[in-house]
Amino acid sequence: MTARPDRIAADIDALAALTDPDRPWTRRAFTPRFLDGRKYIAEAMAAAGLATRIDAAGNLIGRRPGRRPGKVLAVGSHSDTVPDGGRFDGIAGVVAGLEIARVFNETGLVLDHDFEVIDCLSEEVSIFGVSCVGSRAIAGVLPADWLGRAADGLTLADGIEGVGGDPARLIKAKRTDIAAFLELHIEQGPVLEAGRRDVGVVTAISGITRVEIVVEGRADHAGTTPMTARADALVAAADLVLGIRALALARSRGPAHFAATVGEFSILPGAANVVPSSARLLIDARAEKRPDMDAFLVDLNGLSAEVAARHGVAATPRLVSDNQPTPGDPRLLEALEAAADAVGASHRRMASGAGHDAAFFAKVAPAAMVFVPCRDGRSHSPDEWAEAAAIARGADVLIETIRRLDRRQDTE
Amino acid sequence: MTARPDRIAADIDALAALTDPDRPWTRRAFTPRFLDGRKYIAEAMAAAGLATRIDAAGNLIGRRPGRRPGKVLAVGSHSDTVPDGGRFDGIAGVVAGLEIARVFNETGLVLDHDFEVIDCLSEEVSIFGVSCVGSRAIAGVLPADWLGRAADGLTLADGIEGVGGDPARLIKAKRTDIAAFLELHIEQGPVLEAGRRDVGVVTAISGITRVEIVVEGRADHAGTTPMTARADALVAAADLVLGIRALALARSRGPAHFAATVGEFSILPGAANVVPSSARLLIDARAEKRPDMDAFLVDLNGLSAEVAARHGVAATPRLVSDNQPTPGDPRLLEALEAAADAVGASHRRMASGAGHDAAFFAKVAPAAMVFVPCRDGRSHSPDEWAEAAAIARGADVLIETIRRLDRRQDTE
Repeated sequence: MTARPDRIAADIDALAALTDPDRPWTRRAFTPRFLDGRKYIAEAMAAAGLATRIDAAGNLIGRRPGRRPGKVLAVGSHSDTVPDGGRFDGIAGVVAGLEIARVFNETGLVLDHDFEVIDCLSEEVSIFGVSCVGSRAIAGVLPADWLGRAADGLTLADGIEGVGGDPARLIKAKRTDIAAFLELHIEQGPVLEAGRRDVGVVTAISGITRVEIVVEGRADHAGTTPMTARADALVAAADLVLGIRALALARSRGPAHFAATVGEFSILPGAANVVPSSARLLIDARAEKRPDMDAFLVDLNGLSAEVAARHGVAATPRLVSDNQPTPGDPRLLEALEAAADAVGASHRRMASGAGHDAAFFAKVAPAAMVFVPCRDGRSHSPDEWAEAAAIARGADVLIETIRRLDRRQDTE
Repeated sequence: MTARPDRIAADIDALAALTDPDRPWTRRAFTPRFLDGRKYIAEAMAAAGLATRIDAAGNLIGRRPGRRPGKVLAVGSHSDTVPDGGRFDGIAGVVAGLEIARVFNETGLVLDHDFEVIDCLSEEVSIFGVSCVGSRAIAGVLPADWLGRAADGLTLADGIEGVGGDPARLIKAKRTDIAAFLELHIEQGPVLEAGRRDVGVVTAISGITRVEIVVEGRADHAGTTPMTARADALVAAADLVLGIRALALARSRGPAHFAATVGEFSILPGAANVVPSSARLLIDARAEKRPDMDAFLVDLNGLSAEVAARHGVAATPRLVSDNQPTPGDPRLLEALEAAADAVGASHRRMASGAGHDAAFFAKVAPAAMVFVPCRDGRSHSPDEWAEAAAIARGADVLIETIRRLDRRQDTE
């Protein structure tokens, strides 16, 4: 009872072909192209013997009824992409779900639990500026005011309705019947490939904290102002960037995943002959363990004060957003490891630095993730690549995990 | 025979009032507002007994004939401003010229030389994207193809014609009859104010060299890519910014003026969750002495190679523009110092970090500059301020210098 790489490759290729033609591979949520992808997936679900439906939040769900219906073992991810994004981010998990359903169907396996494959709506940021729309609704935490968010003359509510959802009855999408949710995803990093492991058992989805620092210096004439009489906001901001890098590097050497990146950076006035008067940094910090993030934020305050004093500028960090880490369900992690051993898949524990739908499922159900290797860690890029055999290996681990969970009383 | 601060203040105030009303103080070259300013200056010239004309390049020139006409002692600067610029940059020198002409006129002083006050066209960068239009033409070095530069449906030739020039006969603006050109200007830096000196005798107008560095790293997912597996272009560029600052600081501690500034700085892709893939820096370096600039450029190449190796990125400096320093005429510097001593004005030698019209006059005539203090070194800003008494003190030095030069055979 194993997954077939050739069928996984065929699904990946078929979905990759459904791209905006001038910018492969782009199939953003709520677009006609996205609906083409959904049509392909729904037909594949039906061909695998799943009964399909769209829930109130616009999630596409295929179900194989169990012997004792009521509690659900679910797998899934998302089929939408970022602009110019890859062919595997999210899609690998949906396609693995399709293959698992085909294997169950072909072998006539009947589980005690219901089995579902869920294609979550808009995990990526859409034109409405928000992410994880479907999985937030499943967790019952989609903010009601988001439905009014508008873009291109439509609201998010219109968008959900356009994919077949029922935004007026969004609460119906909330789930309390999921016994376990398992998400297979490409790693989007280089660790599994470098360590030659088949799967990563994800200990936690890192918390993401964003901090803005505006550095206020003083504009001066670049030719006439002596070097010692300046309050150069760019020089101070550069000192901050290197300091943040050093803090993150030191903390990343600990046992738990930690990363911090200055991804947005701009200066004013930005004229060749004017000493920069201000600079803005946006820091994206990720921690597997919350105490690491707390310590980083304390260090960042100290660093900012030091840099401000050193360069005669003002620089105060401001918390923009702050999400806690989501640990994988401990019993699911053990089940995944036991299943990997049983099917002969090499594995390691690791944290996810990226956010995923599973983090929202975890609010209403035991949830966990497995990573499969991707080439050079590339993601959100046309270069993103994962071998169909690697995805199949992950699907094998999920098949074995589902069969083991199905036999356990505590998942009923 | 001394300048009157009250009349200087009245001229400054009258010209300040001729500003775009919603963004004081703005009177950019070629605009209707600029022509209003020119009208005021021409009338003030005439009231001071000067015969006015517009030369082929659109410079406004007021002349007081000498006893032995043919060789000219000239003072001047420019009356145009940067957007939101100050009330004194350039204007102080034109207004000082008006006051000197009034003093000569009232006292009935007749020089051997002709005396001219020159308001140079468009010293600041105009909508046509170029600077020092009038003084370049006086030096005979305005590139002919610049006349075709277009903006807002006009060419620079149209602009010159619009202020009363004759662009088809631009060569007529070139001067070979100037015995000495003296430009009074606000310092645009903090040195004179901090050192409590009345005037700065400008040893040289610094050369300006611009260098672009594009740092090429690699875009990676900010959450999933380990800190040690990155080629972060922003981190490398921040290292460069601090390195450039350190090189410039060390060199500025030498006897000659040196400064280097990164005034333009941007990164790609500029997304919160993506490690920056590239960064662009534009360095503005100024040196009073050319060997300092040559050494800086060698150091910059070394720094770039070091930073590139340290961060696993590419970073190669590219020379964008490179202008030599312009020393003040040595005999004029001595004459300015002797005159300052004679009128009891405290003085010091210093370099100009900024470019000025005098640098172009120096190509066809002995030329030199005097600086007067301005508040906090502020310039190109609405905060720019200089006391009328300080400008009058500088004008007194010019009056005495002109009288001394007029008596010297070697300026004939």
